[in-house]
Formats: sequence, C-alpha cells, structure tokens
Amino acid sequence: MGHFKVNKKDIFFILKHQLKYGSLCLLERYRDLNEKMFDMVVNEALNLAQGFVDPLQEIGEKWGVKFEGGKVFCPPEFRNAFKLFGRDGWIATSRDPEYGGQGFPHMMRIVVNDFMYGACQAFNMAPSLTHGAAHLIESFASEELKRCYVPKMFGGVWSGTMCLTEPDAGSNLGGIQTIAYREGNHFKIKGSKIFISWGDHDLSENIIHLLLARIEGAPEGVRGISLFIVPKFRVNPDGLIGDQNDVICERVEEKLGLHASPTCELNFGSHDGCIGYLCGDENMGLAHMFQMMNAARINSGVSGMALASTAYQNALGYAKMRVQGGDIAGRREGGVRIMDHPDVRRMLLWMKAAVEGMRSMIYTGAYWSDFALEMSDGAEKRHYQNLVDFITPIIKACCSEIGFRVCETALQCFGGYGYMKDYPLEQYLRDVKILSLYEGTNGIQSMDLLGRKMRINDGAPFKAFMTEIEGFCEKNMNHPTLGKEVESLSVVVKRLSEVAMGMSNTSKSDPLQWASNTYPALMCFGDVTMAWRLLDMALIAQCIIDDGGGDAFYVGKRMQATYFIGVTLPLTMARIDTCLREGREIVEMPEDGF
Amino acid sequence: MGHFKVNKKDIFFILKHQLKYGSLCLLERYRDLNEKMFDMVVNEALNLAQGFVDPLQEIGEKWGVKFEGGKVFCPPEFRNAFKLFGRDGWIATSRDPEYGGQGFPHMMRIVVNDFMYGACQAFNMAPSLTHGAAHLIESFASEELKRCYVPKMFGGVWSGTMCLTEPDAGSNLGGIQTIAYREGNHFKIKGSKIFISWGDHDLSENIIHLLLARIEGAPEGVRGISLFIVPKFRVNPDGLIGDQNDVICERVEEKLGLHASPTCELNFGSHDGCIGYLCGDENMGLAHMFQMMNAARINSGVSGMALASTAYQNALGYAKMRVQGGDIAGRREGGVRIMDHPDVRRMLLWMKAAVEGMRSMIYTGAYWSDFALEMSDGAEKRHYQNLVDFITPIIKACCSEIGFRVCETALQCFGGYGYMKDYPLEQYLRDVKILSLYEGTNGIQSMDLLGRKMRINDGAPFKAFMTEIEGFCEKNMNHPTLGKEVESLSVVVKRLSEVAMGMSNTSKSDPLQWASNTYPALMCFGDVTMAWRLLDMALIAQCIIDDGGGDAFYVGKRMQATYFIGVTLPLTMARIDTCLREGREIVEMPEDGF
Repeated sequence: MGHFKVNKKDIFFILKHQLKYGSLCLLERYRDLNEKMFDMVVNEALNLAQGFVDPLQEIGEKWGVKFEGGKVFCPPEFRNAFKLFGRDGWIATSRDPEYGGQGFPHMMRIVVNDFMYGACQAFNMAPSLTHGAAHLIESFASEELKRCYVPKMFGGVWSGTMCLTEPDAGSNLGGIQTIAYREGNHFKIKGSKIFISWGDHDLSENIIHLLLARIEGAPEGVRGISLFIVPKFRVNPDGLIGDQNDVICERVEEKLGLHASPTCELNFGSHDGCIGYLCGDENMGLAHMFQMMNAARINSGVSGMALASTAYQNALGYAKMRVQGGDIAGRREGGVRIMDHPDVRRMLLWMKAAVEGMRSMIYTGAYWSDFALEMSDGAEKRHYQNLVDFITPIIKACCSEIGFRVCETALQCFGGYGYMKDYPLEQYLRDVKILSLYEGTNGIQSMDLLGRKMRINDGAPFKAFMTEIEGFCEKNMNHPTLGKEVESLSVVVKRLSEVAMGMSNTSKSDPLQWASNTYPALMCFGDVTMAWRLLDMALIAQCIIDDGGGDAFYVGKRMQATYFIGVTLPLTMARIDTCLREGREIVEMPEDGF
Repeated sequence: MGHFKVNKKDIFFILKHQLKYGSLCLLERYRDLNEKMFDMVVNEALNLAQGFVDPLQEIGEKWGVKFEGGKVFCPPEFRNAFKLFGRDGWIATSRDPEYGGQGFPHMMRIVVNDFMYGACQAFNMAPSLTHGAAHLIESFASEELKRCYVPKMFGGVWSGTMCLTEPDAGSNLGGIQTIAYREGNHFKIKGSKIFISWGDHDLSENIIHLLLARIEGAPEGVRGISLFIVPKFRVNPDGLIGDQNDVICERVEEKLGLHASPTCELNFGSHDGCIGYLCGDENMGLAHMFQMMNAARINSGVSGMALASTAYQNALGYAKMRVQGGDIAGRREGGVRIMDHPDVRRMLLWMKAAVEGMRSMIYTGAYWSDFALEMSDGAEKRHYQNLVDFITPIIKACCSEIGFRVCETALQCFGGYGYMKDYPLEQYLRDVKILSLYEGTNGIQSMDLLGRKMRINDGAPFKAFMTEIEGFCEKNMNHPTLGKEVESLSVVVKRLSEVAMGMSNTSKSDPLQWASNTYPALMCFGDVTMAWRLLDMALIAQCIIDDGGGDAFYVGKRMQATYFIGVTLPLTMARIDTCLREGREIVEMPEDGF
C-alpha cells in the first residue's frame, strides 16, 4: 500500500560499522543494555514504520484534518496509531523508566524518528512533540507536576505541544505578548499563539501546551519570558480530567503540505478562564524551552533526511522498473530502463550520497549527544556537548535544504509522472518544504552557527568540531586508496576554518557584512560534514573490500564518497571564498535599486 | 485582488537600452512599424495582465477544472478571457495578418507571454498552445486547411493542443504507437495520448489537436512519424462545426500544481470514427513538430522566469512591509522591517539578479529569433539561427531550474507564512515545478546542448554563441569600473568553451561518461549567459551613472551584476572542471551498490 522503503543494511552499516553504537553501553546509565537490544529496537521500529505508520501517509493526505465546531478531527487510524505508540513505548524510547520511558539511549530515539518521519512526517510530529513537551516537564517542573503529567504523556494518553510563535513574534521571541497573571499557586494565561502544530486534535484525552509567556511586570525582551504548562482540560487533584481550560482553537491553517498535521491558532484565556502552571524558574522560560527547541531543530533535520531517504528509494525503485528510450552506448537493443541512462544515474548517485551523508551526520550527532548527556563531568563531556552545540544548526539547516533538493531530484527522475498525484513524490516535495522555515528559519540557524557557536566559551564548540574533523584528516591522509579524497577534504576544512574565524572577527565590528554571508558559510559546513561522514564510511568499506569481503554494497559506499567529494568540494571551496569577498552589495544596495 | 507585479522600468531597460528593440523595424517585414508602436503593445499587455489575467490565478486555483460526463469545465472567467485574447489579437501578436495575426515581431509575443505567464501560468497555456498549434498549420498544411483552421484559432474561436506523449513514449518519441490509416483524402486515427495540456475544455467552440502518429506501414522510429490535424468536432465544407470526431477525454490528471490547466488523457478513434488530416509531409512529422516543440521549450523558460519574477516582486513587497526583530547593527531602536536584515537582502538581491539575468537572456534570444526569421538568406541570418538553436535548451532548462529556485527563495522570505495558502508563494512553487519536466526534461535539454548543438554544421551554433560572448568580453575588458567582472567572465567562458569541446569529442567515443556530465555543463552555460547579460546591463547603467544621470535604479543594475558574478562565477568555474573529472562512478556504480 504505502511507499516507505529503507535499505536496512545502510542503517546498520552506520550504526554498527561506523559508530559502533554498542559502545553506548559503556556509559554507566546504559550498562545493563547491550548491542543486541539496540538491534532489536531498530528492527522493531522498522517493522512498525513499514507495517503500521506507512499507510498513514496516504490516509492522512486524503483525509486531511477536519475543523468543526471549534474542534479538530483527525483520521481514526491516526488515533489508533498514537495510542499504540504510547502503549508500546515509542513516544519515550529514550526517557527515564521512572516516568514511563523505555530507558534507551537518546540515539535510539533519533533512529526511531528516522523511520517514522520517513514513513509519515505529518503523523510522527504528534508523538515527537509529545515527547519534547513531556521531557520539558520532566526536566524543569516540580515533582508534583512531573508525576501528574509526564507518565500520561509518555504513555500517549495525553499529548503535548510547544506554543511559542505569535503573529508578531516568530523569529523574534523577545516580542512575545502573552501574559501570565499570578493567582494563588497557579497563573491565569491570556494571549494568542499561531502556527501551533498539533495544537488541537482528537488523538488523546488531553493536550498539554508548553507555552512561553511573560509574567505580569516581568522585564522586556527575552529575559522576561517564563515557561508554563497549560492543559486543554484542567487536571483534578486525583489526576483525572476536569473542566475545559479556556483554550480555544480559533483556526486551522491551509498549507502547502503536511495536510494531516493540524496547524492551529490558539486563544488562551479569552474568557479569563485559562489556568497555567509555571514550569521551571521565572523568567528562565526561553532557556528552558531551548531544550525542546534544540530537539525540534534536530528533528527537523531528521525529518528532512528521512523524507529525502524515502524519496530516493522511490526514485531508485522507479528507475529500475521504468523502460524508456534506447541505450546511449548501444549496449542493448530496444528500450532500456531509465536506470541505464547516465543522467538518471547521476541523479540517483547524488541522492544516495546526500541521504547517506545526512544520515551519518545526524546519527553521529546523536551518538555525541549520549556522551554529552551521560558522561561524568569533565573535559570529555564538555567536548561532546560542544560538538552537539555546533552540529545542531548544521543538521537543522543543511538537512532541510538538501532534503528538499533530494525530494526535488527524486521527483525529476519520474519525469512527468513525478508531477502527478498518482505518485508519492509531489507530496514529499510539499511536506519537506516546511523544514527550512519552522524551528528557526535556516537564516536564523546560520547566524547561530557563525555567531554564537563561534564565540561562546571562547569558541569551544567550533574548536571541538575542528578537532574531530582535522584529526580524521590527519589520521587518514596517506590512505592508499582514498588518500586523495582525504587530502581534498583537509584542504577545504582548513580554508573553511580560516574563513569562519575571519568572519567571526567581523561579527561585532561589521555585523551587516558578516550577516550577509552566514548562510553560504553554514552550507559549506554542511558540505564538509557530509563529505567527512561519507569518507569515513568509505574507509571502512574499503577495508572490507581490501580484505576480500567487499561486494557491490561496499563498492557503493566508496563510490558515493568519491563522487560526492569530487563534484561537491570544489564548489564548496569556491563558495567558502565568496564568504569573505569584499563586495558590499547586499549591505549597500539602495532600497529603490531592488 | 491579485498578486501579479512587475517593474515596468526593468522591462523597458532591457527592451530599449540593452536591446534597442526599435531596431527590429530595420527588417523589411517590420518597416512600417516603429518603437512607439512596440511600446504601446508592451504597455497594453501589461495592463491586460494586471487588470484581467491576474485575477484568474486565484479563481483558477480555487475552481480547478471539473471533469463530468467526459467533458472538462473551466471557470467562466477563463472562457471570457480566452475570447478576449482572441478578439483583441493577443493569441497571434506576432503572426501574419493574412491569417488574423497582428504582424508584430516574434519578440513581442515573448514579452507578452512574460506578463501573461507571470499573472496566470495555467490560463496562458491555452492561448499559447493555440498559437503554437495554429502556427504549425500555417507553416506546413495545405492552403485549404490553413484557411479553414488558422484564422479561427488566432481569433480564439477554436483552440489548439500538441499531442505527442503516450504512456510509453515520453522522452522517447520514436516509440509512438498511434496509427493513421489512409481513407480517401484524409486519415483515420487510432491511439491514445497522455499529459495533453488543455486537451479538453469549454473555452472554445472546437479544439484542434496537432498530433503525431505513424501512417500504417511507415518505418519504425522517428523517421516514420507524421503530423496530423485532428479536430474535436469535424469541420463541414462551409467551415462550420459538424459532428463530434471520436476524440474522447478519458481522464484528467490530479497534479502538484497548475490546477486550472486541464491535463488530459485523450483517446482517438476508439469507435473508429476519428478523422485527421495530414499536416505537411509524410514521415516528416517530428521535424515539423519541432517548430512547436522549440516554441514550447522557449515558453517553458519564459514561464519559469515570469513566475520567478512575480514571486520575487511579492517577496520584495513583503520584506518592505513586515516588521520582525531588531536591527543587527543597532542602527534603529525597536522592530525593523525584514528588508533590513542582511540575510533577507541576500535572498532578495540574488533573486533580483537571477530574474533579470533570465529575462535578459530570454529577450535577447527572442531578438535574435526575429533576425533569424526575417533577414534575407546569408551568413548573418545563419549566425542568428545558430544563436537561437544554441540558446533554446539553455533557456528551457536554466530558467525552469533557476525559476524554481527563485520561487523557493521567495517563499523562504515569508518565513512560516510562505507555507500557508493565504499567501501566493506556495502556489508559485507548485506551478513552476512542471517546467523542468515537460517539453523534454532538463536532462534531455542537456544532451541536446552538449551533443547535437555542438556537432551540427561543424559546431556552428556553439561557435556563434562563443563569438558573441567572447566579443563582448574583448570589447569591455578594460572598462574602468567593471573591467574586473568582465575579466572574470572571460576566464570562465574560455574554460567552459574548452570543456564543452573536450566533452563533445568524447560524446561518440565515451557516450556514457559524456552523458554523466551534460547536465552540470548545461547549468554552467546558463550561469555564464546570465552573467553576460547582467554585465551588459551593468555597463549601460554605469555609463548613465558616469554621465551623472544615475539614480538608485541604475546602481541596482550595477550591483546585481557585480554581486551575481562575485558569488556565482567562482562556483561555475569549479563546476566546469568537475565536468571533465576522470572519476567514472556514475557509469561504473554497480546496481546493487545503490
């Protein structure tokens, strides 16, 4: 029925050969687990994605969401799926068993999300947001609130949202106008939020909004924002659901894609009856929320990569089956499969490399996260945290941008059929487009990477990242088969490092010129990171080939790396240099000149 | 109501300053015309696009097309618009007055199409296809058929289509299976065509299909294809409409975009009652059809550029109005318009340059066409024809690809709102996507450019193109203000020329490797052509600035050129080199390695 496909061997190659994910069990927290258990989770997740989530894609697209009488209704199959996710532990794969989590490493959640987003992005946003919201409560709320909310959310009985954006506070959260009035041990909330994904629906008994608001009298700007727990239905002291909490869904957006994911405008307290509970410390809301925002940024990248992966697999399947035109080299008589046309192979090979480069980048970041979270304090833990800090905006922006590009290319492989709703490609293109926009536009990510992430702790995130990638280059520079590619990477990395530092120096003295170039610079970091991960896989594969055990699968790993590096890094190098060009047209262009 | 906007000053700058389009009146055929008359057509077309066509975009998107009882129904406003286009001469602006045309140069049709596609692509396909189909009849059919069909089509009483694609003959027209059986002075047609734009509708009294079929007993492949005129309703000897002609619309496609343009599957002769008339010579159908296909390829480019132009203008308008965030350089207190954020200006400036580069490329090609068509035989006429031959696949592929990229970037400027159906951006993205697919996929265009167009007549099209662009560089190399940019262009052009010739040499000896690189090579030709046209405009603008008459408008022309060249050509240069790299991954990748 569905169209979700993934090459399991590719997944396990990264997990087992490249990252050796069993080593996560060396961490104290995971000492009772082992690699076999991880493998089982991966296999189970894949089965669930294929057998259960995949059909939701078509159902959701046909059904959309219905908005009637101020309530949002979703397809019944979505309701069942959300229940099952809760019941079987898929919402909280990586959370503390004390609150209903499964206790697996953080990384497993990312792998699970890879498959679930790849099967149905619109649906998987619901468990993913629920996880993020509950995790905020788990991290920052009082014990009482934790006990009340978290297990119900991890169990899929209740769901969660993140309520940040307002009509005049999107990228600029300092402009938030929603107010919280103190009233006994809780607050009364008053304000309006827009673009709230899964802001209303009928998948769960209650919806728990994690909301940013300004406590009456709080300072202006981002330092006066606090985080609140605002349930759709109030919760009685016995933990059961009480009255409606004056949260009204005013409107559901019509969008380019993601038709099965309700994007809501919510009014809080328009009848003065909206109760909320402070989560964490007063005026620390934005800092707390960053936990969920960072997770959402990573998830945007995962989603972009996962859709790209599914789109690529569909294009590959089509290219192997569709006969059209003759062989350009006359190797065969009559019609040949489009797989035999070099220009189609060019698209397929680039897509394969892009998808695997992104997936390895994401899995690597997830692997780092577990060490950052679970190691005991010290330089090594800080090193991993720095790596995670640095790679987060790269994952968000590059995987959304390149993910879009892959979906576009996959559609192109289908020729005219790619444009038709009979094939799944046009939906991937529409769905994937959101990812460059939400959770901080890609432009915002570039300023975070080339600004804050270059400066904080004396540039520690940047230095940590460079240590990893330069170390890789040094170690493999003289590799007999792939030394040339390692050297290419090394040269580009060196130049990128210089340019990033050069830019960083001007971020205060010439912020306009600096911000004119952060976006291309971010994309260069993406290219370099993908090239590095691809080359790392190629080296492992080459080892297996050299040992005589390498079949086409391993040759593919090598060829995707040499091809990607050969056609990408020269352009990356050229682009890096444009980031320091002296021309000031962006800054100086007169407005009437546009 | 609508969203169509164009900067008239930009249009006239290209037409009057850059191309001096009044010089077309030097051609014998246009000696009775003058530049003022051309200006009037441009202004009238713009008024029509703004006042009349623009509203169709929203109406068409909401209405779509209805398919009931085997018939396609369009919005009534579309019917009125098509009638008006016919009545007022907008279908045949550039055709022979003897058959109902307006007698303007070919170029004027392209300018008109720029505005009409920019206002409503879905609608403008109907008059545009009608023009192309009627022009085929005008060029190749018997006098009797011409008199019967052409004036009615130019007058918008009847409309036209091009019927090429079959389920197994898309890019590969040699595979066409539709058969024509001789019967007296006409033929009986039997076969099925898919993806026929405006294949059925209620805008006109009759629909005239220009159809490729194989006469019974004709040779296999492309040399056995003939062109037929197949009316939906038979035409009586008195020129009035007779019985239905056994052309049945089986199905209307559901598509990503262009919802107001019906894409039909047509069955011809399923009840043995489909009469068709040979148009032109037997077995010369593909050669004849190339006139319409080339026009359709150019129109794809026009459409991509025009949508990009509209998308850019919308992003610019939004950026000037939308307040979000503070000024990064602290130049102002409080919120600023997003126009003041450098990353937004980066997107706007790139879009402006891309749109103007594409528009100038297209207008220049159209200007060449008029000389190619109307000069008396000789070397100069051949030179212009060679230029047109060479630039056609560049216009088709680059303007569809870069047009898509511009629409994507414009959407990005809107942030989350860009994803919403309340704004027009998401529709532009969906509509524009078709252009890389139809009229020969962009991959096909690249093989035409780097193959046939490098080889025919001893490489005359390529040489003609190089003569123009190299001549430009030589002439302007020492320009005091823009000499550096001219030199950059010159260096890249030289290298591209070498690489294109190098590739051409291997197209026969190593066709697989050659075809692995035609697509990136084509895109390099696009970059270079755009850079050339932008720089040409910048030189003119700089002249005006140096004479003391240059305001922001002219500074904009210079800055868009220096910016585009500064950030694009270094990447183009790098990409050119990748086209000759030795790696053979695309060719040698084992199938199981994907």
